[in-house]
Amino acid sequence: MKPLIFINFKHYENATGRNAELLLNEFRKIKDQKNIYYCLGPGDLRLSLEFPDLNIYSQHVDYNGYGPYTGSISMNFLKSINVNGSLLNHSEKRLEIDDIRKTIEYSKSHDFKLVVCAENIDEIKSISKLRPDYIAYEPRELIGGDISVSNAKPDIIRSASLICSGNDVKLLVGAGIKTENDIKASINLGASGVLIASGVIKDPKPINKLISLTGNITG
Amino acid sequence: MKPLIFINFKHYENATGRNAELLLNEFRKIKDQKNIYYCLGPGDLRLSLEFPDLNIYSQHVDYNGYGPYTGSISMNFLKSINVNGSLLNHSEKRLEIDDIRKTIEYSKSHDFKLVVCAENIDEIKSISKLRPDYIAYEPRELIGGDISVSNAKPDIIRSASLICSGNDVKLLVGAGIKTENDIKASINLGASGVLIASGVIKDPKPINKLISLTGNITG
Repeated sequence: MKPLIFINFKHYENATGRNAELLLNEFRKIKDQKNIYYCLGPGDLRLSLEFPDLNIYSQHVDYNGYGPYTGSISMNFLKSINVNGSLLNHSEKRLEIDDIRKTIEYSKSHDFKLVVCAENIDEIKSISKLRPDYIAYEPRELIGGDISVSNAKPDIIRSASLICSGNDVKLLVGAGIKTENDIKASINLGASGVLIASGVIKDPKPINKLISLTGNITG
Repeated sequence: MKPLIFINFKHYENATGRNAELLLNEFRKIKDQKNIYYCLGPGDLRLSLEFPDLNIYSQHVDYNGYGPYTGSISMNFLKSINVNGSLLNHSEKRLEIDDIRKTIEYSKSHDFKLVVCAENIDEIKSISKLRPDYIAYEPRELIGGDISVSNAKPDIIRSASLICSGNDVKLLVGAGIKTENDIKASINLGASGVLIASGVIKDPKPINKLISLTGNITG
């Protein structure tokens, strides 16, 4: 199975608004990309209607349904526009553990996928017991930097992988992932895939970067 | 000057996703509606690109710019898609006063309009000192109900109006507003307009309801 690649667009200017559309139009050129997931900001989610051929995820989701919820992004809404999964608890959008629990519970009854982010092994232990589909391990101090988590924290990735597999949760790793080797190392340590943001989005040529990562993997 | 009418779509099923588009297509039929503002949920904001003839506002906005802000809705992004204002601190999306202050400051340097909600006279006093463009007074206990704020709290609206005008802030009132008379009463008490959600959106015929409100006012 190919490594899963989640691209977080964050709120970078070149990946938001009209630029998000331009970027997706570029990324659309990649063939056979069922393993790639594009995580869009709240205001760009409707782009999923224009890109039904791509896997579009949200960067955050709430656990309410439809109703009097000003400012909310529900799974019901997301599914109605063909967005079938979301990041949750990203280090830039942290939640209380009780809200994480409620959101995971809601996701299970709504056939909705969650990638729940965790910053350390204690969080991985707590969250994996709630059995989300994925946990993304991202040490906060490495996010956006040049040192990849697979180089800096191999032992934690190995431990995290054991904890996750014991709970039937897939592990993703993120932070500093920029090369094919970073991805291969992560997979060898037991991860199912990676979560990448600046490594692709802040590259001078995001499309070339993403092709180099996926092309090498598939080739 | 016509009363300002802000319609909060909240996250009602008939006003979210593909239904938000259908509803805006209906509302678009109203002529001469520069005084009407449609407040859309985060996931529907890109509809502003399809409805450049309507005033589209956001239901919430953050005070960061572009950058590594997962799950964020910035004024920079909103302005780039022709959304030039937002609700803030709605009772269903409450903020700390310090975050309200930072968001108002950011709005002033970015030519962005804010409608800051307040639940009581103390909050109106605190927030009006920060001089947002609008304060919307919505007593929490009346939201979504049948008793209009203009009937239930005329004295508070009068006091709020004095506090606001002393700080060069326009007052809107909300909660239970459903008829032309509710709007007229609010204006007579010193408000510049109203914030309506269920009164229009939950009506069996939202377009007819909105026409009856605006038609009577303009006629």
